[in-house]
Amino acid sequence: MPADTLSATFAALADPTRRAILARLTSGEASVTALAEPFEMSLPAVSKHLKVLERAGLIARGREAQWRPCRLKADPLKDADEWLERYRRFWEESFDRLDEYLGEIQKQEKKRGGNGRTKEDNDARSK
Amino acid sequence: MPADTLSATFAALADPTRRAILARLTSGEASVTALAEPFEMSLPAVSKHLKVLERAGLIARGREAQWRPCRLKADPLKDADEWLERYRRFWEESFDRLDEYLGEIQKQEKKRGGNGRTKEDNDARSK
Repeated sequence: MPADTLSATFAALADPTRRAILARLTSGEASVTALAEPFEMSLPAVSKHLKVLERAGLIARGREAQWRPCRLKADPLKDADEWLERYRRFWEESFDRLDEYLGEIQKQEKKRGGNGRTKEDNDARSK
Repeated sequence: MPADTLSATFAALADPTRRAILARLTSGEASVTALAEPFEMSLPAVSKHLKVLERAGLIARGREAQWRPCRLKADPLKDADEWLERYRRFWEESFDRLDEYLGEIQKQEKKRGGNGRTKEDNDARSK
């Protein structure tokens, strides 16, 4: 388990089963048995995942002996989101570059007098 | 290394050194030596982190034999951000609850005729 909170959050999210458990908990609290159901997994295996999520502060568990429902605690995800926030302009920039590139292709098409359609498009239109 | 892309992204982010490397690369490409400088870490240790980032598609490396600069590739972070997106309402909800709670406290203060200041505030004001 990583020492810092943000690393613990990201480590907990680095598993498809744990992400599926969190997704399930968005519709309300659930028992371990209910959480285990959709996965072909033993209860101890699911419990292990729940412990990782609980230590990362992503879920909390009820204190009733028989029924210890799990519920989502989304606050650590807010910190993860804030960390990602400052990288947003970088992926937006790469989309801008793609836009520029596509614009350039269209301009070249026009210069060549093409209509930007493929042979298949024209075949389809002539039917 | 996790098999699915999103898990690989989160696993790569689950380390403070790797996050610091990505942060450094937001200001432009850098050599391994330059990246290693701020950390008290051997070059092989830094190279290991770079390999994790590269496999997760978060950095790309130049092909020049002597100078293989690393640069940020933010696209996998977009998918991580989209995954987090659907949990946003849950942390916003918990802030709403905190707001409600603070509003409730203020109302009770008014009822009791209190001004919401602490003894220390009043001491400071009377000086």
